[in-house]
Amino acid sequence: MPAGTAAAVKTMSPRELKEVGAEIILANTYHLILRPGIKVVEKAGGLHRFMSWDKPILTDSGGYQVFSLAQRRKVTEAGIRFQSHIDGSMCFLGPEESIRAQQALGADIITTLDECPPFPSPYEKVLESLEMTLRWERRCKELRRESEGGLFGIVQGGVYQDLRRRSVEALLEDDFDGYAIGGLSVGEPTSQMCEIAEFTASLLPKHKPRYLMGVGTPVDLVECVARGIDMFDCVLPTRNARNGKAFTSDGPINVRSAKFKEDFLPIQSDCDCYTCSNFTRAYIRHLLNIDEILALRLLTTHNLHFYLRLMTRLGEAIEEGKLSAFRAAFKERYLLAESSP
Amino acid sequence: MPAGTAAAVKTMSPRELKEVGAEIILANTYHLILRPGIKVVEKAGGLHRFMSWDKPILTDSGGYQVFSLAQRRKVTEAGIRFQSHIDGSMCFLGPEESIRAQQALGADIITTLDECPPFPSPYEKVLESLEMTLRWERRCKELRRESEGGLFGIVQGGVYQDLRRRSVEALLEDDFDGYAIGGLSVGEPTSQMCEIAEFTASLLPKHKPRYLMGVGTPVDLVECVARGIDMFDCVLPTRNARNGKAFTSDGPINVRSAKFKEDFLPIQSDCDCYTCSNFTRAYIRHLLNIDEILALRLLTTHNLHFYLRLMTRLGEAIEEGKLSAFRAAFKERYLLAESSP
Repeated sequence: MPAGTAAAVKTMSPRELKEVGAEIILANTYHLILRPGIKVVEKAGGLHRFMSWDKPILTDSGGYQVFSLAQRRKVTEAGIRFQSHIDGSMCFLGPEESIRAQQALGADIITTLDECPPFPSPYEKVLESLEMTLRWERRCKELRRESEGGLFGIVQGGVYQDLRRRSVEALLEDDFDGYAIGGLSVGEPTSQMCEIAEFTASLLPKHKPRYLMGVGTPVDLVECVARGIDMFDCVLPTRNARNGKAFTSDGPINVRSAKFKEDFLPIQSDCDCYTCSNFTRAYIRHLLNIDEILALRLLTTHNLHFYLRLMTRLGEAIEEGKLSAFRAAFKERYLLAESSP
Repeated sequence: MPAGTAAAVKTMSPRELKEVGAEIILANTYHLILRPGIKVVEKAGGLHRFMSWDKPILTDSGGYQVFSLAQRRKVTEAGIRFQSHIDGSMCFLGPEESIRAQQALGADIITTLDECPPFPSPYEKVLESLEMTLRWERRCKELRRESEGGLFGIVQGGVYQDLRRRSVEALLEDDFDGYAIGGLSVGEPTSQMCEIAEFTASLLPKHKPRYLMGVGTPVDLVECVARGIDMFDCVLPTRNARNGKAFTSDGPINVRSAKFKEDFLPIQSDCDCYTCSNFTRAYIRHLLNIDEILALRLLTTHNLHFYLRLMTRLGEAIEEGKLSAFRAAFKERYLLAESSP
């Protein structure tokens, strides 16, 4: 899922999103609460009409962003009181407020409010946080009527396998429409992220979506799909594009580099995205040099196409029973180039 | 002609330019000399291939931008020596250098090197400048082989009618493919700009393009077309878009304004551009508030569509013999709104 943070996937128009193969996007409830405000979106007829996107939208609960406010929030059993980083006003986000906001936005898939403890956190702290999250998630489930679309529960439990198991077992009792794995990719080593993702995915029902939140690099995607993950969201393809970086099957490249000054090849020769079909590295490098917005658009287009194409190919490899071969070949080509001078 | 300054119309992709009705764009030789350099564009196969634009391109000579460098340039009969504002290096642009650069870029229509005196300038100063410009223009004409495409001469002479006449008469001897009117819209009152444009256009052959450089507002376009002008270039539609301003038939609007917070109408209700077909003022205002690039794209798309549609409608009005009625109706609607509270 491309990151459509505050009702826009940065630099992209909706028709371009469709063209690169986006089937669903993520939007952040926290950002939309602050600007333009849930009421404005509701009056516009919901998020789909507001941003002119007629395919599915998944919203997060807002919890993750609020927790990252650090000094400007206070957590109680009721929910989270926090201060807007925009205008300093005080806001409150509890399980019910989050669900009502997501319902008002009209998202197709909404998510439960959870607390995401920082890494590293001691076992007792994560346990305590998890128990409160489970009570919050039950309150979310009770509020969400089934007819209104999907509700995903979020598995927490840090890097502790027995807490992850405790979290999954409690969520399964409530029979959510899908399961998100939260609290990873927050600073722990990649090997540990993969290990916990694999362990958690193994406990979740195979016939429902398993969504790993906030992950990751192209290799992370390959590795985690191999471990049972179906869905991801990540700002890497869009954010890196705005920093002049492009993903390719031969590893990432920095298009600002002087070595591309007279390189009249596309970003990736066997890519059929709009960018690679029409423009060269030399041209995009020139646009970056003159701070031209078109550069950021062209790189975002390519990077999203690269990510979404990778997910499609992973799906095809699974259907054809060739995931292991695909995984090995992808990593060899990608990582070899990454480690070359 | 949308301004494609340094091989890009700011924020726009080539296919979007076609969609808004662009038939030809302008590129600035001065900007391209500095970045990425003429040689890079030449190696890329010319400007069309470099920027992936397969319709006509007109290049200016570079003179206008070099003159605006003020303290960093020195003019002699040979040409202009100037210091790059990018890296401080010394460069030279004479008539031959300008033509060779424009030919290397592969522009379909190129223009002669001229000196553009500031406003106001005394008669003697403008006369002296004009005589040198005419010698430069003859050197341009001698260098440009006819087979290579169009060469436009540039009429100078400031606000002095007899100097404008002197300029036109000298240029007509060399029989250029079209005639640009330079040295206007440089600070003189609009009424004087219109007067000199009308006087100059009346001296130029009707069967060749008459191009008024650097003009103007929507009303300027209507007024100057009524005075015999066929072509314009201007940064207003693109630059104003990046400042949050949209042109409409009811006058310009500032989309950042709080009054649009819950305005779920398009920028202009009877506009069929991509922006107006899909997005509301409230949404674009929100995007401006969060500094989202998509806002600048959507406004640029609308503004260019507005300008190009206006030119199309002016052409139709002329063919139907209804220019006076169109002109009166357009100005009444546009200016009435502009002066309302």
